[in-house]
Amino acid sequence: MVHGELLYEGKAKRIYATENPEIVLVQYKDSATAFNGKKFATIEGKGQLNNQITSLLFQELRASGIDSHFIEQIAKNEQLVKRVSVIPLEVVVRNVAAGSFSKRVGMEEGIRLKHPIVEFYYKDDALGDPLITEDHIDILGLASEEDVAVLKKNALQINKKLTGLFASAGIKLVDFKLEFGKDSKGQILLADEISPDTCRLWDEVSNAKLDKDVFRRELGSLTEAYKKILEKLEGLQNA
Amino acid sequence: MVHGELLYEGKAKRIYATENPEIVLVQYKDSATAFNGKKFATIEGKGQLNNQITSLLFQELRASGIDSHFIEQIAKNEQLVKRVSVIPLEVVVRNVAAGSFSKRVGMEEGIRLKHPIVEFYYKDDALGDPLITEDHIDILGLASEEDVAVLKKNALQINKKLTGLFASAGIKLVDFKLEFGKDSKGQILLADEISPDTCRLWDEVSNAKLDKDVFRRELGSLTEAYKKILEKLEGLQNA
Ligand SMILES: Nc1ncnc2c1ncn2[C@@H]1O[C@H](COP(=O)(O)OP(=O)(O)O)[C@@H](O)[C@H]1O
Ligand SMILES: Nc1ncnc2c1ncn2[C@@H]1O[C@H](COP(=O)(O)OP(=O)(O)O)[C@@H](O)[C@H]1O
Ligand SMILES: [Mg+2]
Ligand SMILES: [Mg+2]
Repeated sequence: MVHGELLYEGKAKRIYATENPEIVLVQYKDSATAFNGKKFATIEGKGQLNNQITSLLFQELRASGIDSHFIEQIAKNEQLVKRVSVIPLEVVVRNVAAGSFSKRVGMEEGIRLKHPIVEFYYKDDALGDPLITEDHIDILGLASEEDVAVLKKNALQINKKLTGLFASAGIKLVDFKLEFGKDSKGQILLADEISPDTCRLWDEVSNAKLDKDVFRRELGSLTEAYKKILEKLEGLQNA
Repeated sequence: MVHGELLYEGKAKRIYATENPEIVLVQYKDSATAFNGKKFATIEGKGQLNNQITSLLFQELRASGIDSHFIEQIAKNEQLVKRVSVIPLEVVVRNVAAGSFSKRVGMEEGIRLKHPIVEFYYKDDALGDPLITEDHIDILGLASEEDVAVLKKNALQINKKLTGLFASAGIKLVDFKLEFGKDSKGQILLADEISPDTCRLWDEVSNAKLDKDVFRRELGSLTEAYKKILEKLEGLQNA
């Protein structure tokens, strides 16, 4: 696959055009960033791990009827996806109190919420990706009320599937961030990535962190943690 | 009226018991605080002004069928109110972009929103009164879904009345904060205060700030601004 024009370079991925205007190539980078880019490092092998984990998860979601932008993995660190116009919202699902939620509401990390919740953050680096309400989404014109309802429904459905999948692998899905976009027909489609960069994943027994918090909080080798996730998920597929 | 036991001393008011367990005395203090208490000062006459303005506004609301905890003003800086169990939410209504809303979503101060919105902040000084979503309110058990619906409906109704009232006085009601409580029968009741401490009020012509931003941003004499508000509102009543 010949890379076309570099359309966008983000903190974790590069997006290239392809011969097909409806398809883009996603290249996962070996960079780790946190705290809105204030902390960063190059971590060899991370791009490949995230690409493999994301590809596996999008395939698992598809197998259970949840569509996404994912088409196919074409290299260790590259995948082809349907081009979408990304809705500038980080759609966060939480099952267990952690991170910014715990800080915001004063609830200790690790407490299971009585039901999963969906939060919306405005995807805007300059503003620091702030939490916003559905009224804010409306006022800013980021998505219609109907679209927001679809995002919430899809996010909770994806949470159900992923929670079960990770549980089978002995991993607690604490929370995660999704991005959605609209394809050329205006259809809402799950996009971006689902990886240990965008999920909080805790070992079900030891509660050891197997996600980007290893980097954020300097808890050891990031690639070792991500490898463990990939191996456990691959173990499920081969079982 | 003999003051009973001091039940609570907050940043702006003291709450005293009375002979009647269902009634408390609110004493407005001459203190000004901002930025979660980080900036503070004593401003002579402020307590009286806020007490008079709040009393006037609660009376106006009652006259148009919107009930509150307010019973009667009994001294320049004191009023009697129904005792309620305060719901720990700051219910904010916004008509025009300003303050933390402008900072959060990157919208310039002064832009009129396409419709009024209601926000909820968790009334918790230690957490810095964070913005929370309706799901957070549910998870924290701060109010039921039905109660939240009542708070929103009441807040928008109060906004309609107050916006009209201030407009008649040549003042733009930019945004304001309300608190609600439950009386001994479990009825939701508007409580606390409605004053230039808790509203953003701009002169309709000059856009001059006539509220606590005068203190927050050091724009001149706070009591001069509050006096102007009181005089304009009293002018309406005498018209
Ligand atoms: N299918 C898609 N089509 C177009 N853009 C996408 C698609 N999936 C994800 N993107 C966008 O590509 C970028 C991915 O790069 P990333 O490094 O994660 O960026 P960021 O630093 O903005 O998080 C993001 O802006 C994301 O919204
Ligand atoms: N009718 C009422 N009954 C009981 N408490 C009330 C009533 N109205 C307001 N309060 C509470 O009394 C306190 C008022 O004091 P204030 O100085 O404004 O406090 P704060 O510093 O917490 O804002 C607040 O905690 C408010 O919630
Ligand atoms: Mg990203
Ligand atoms: Mg107060």
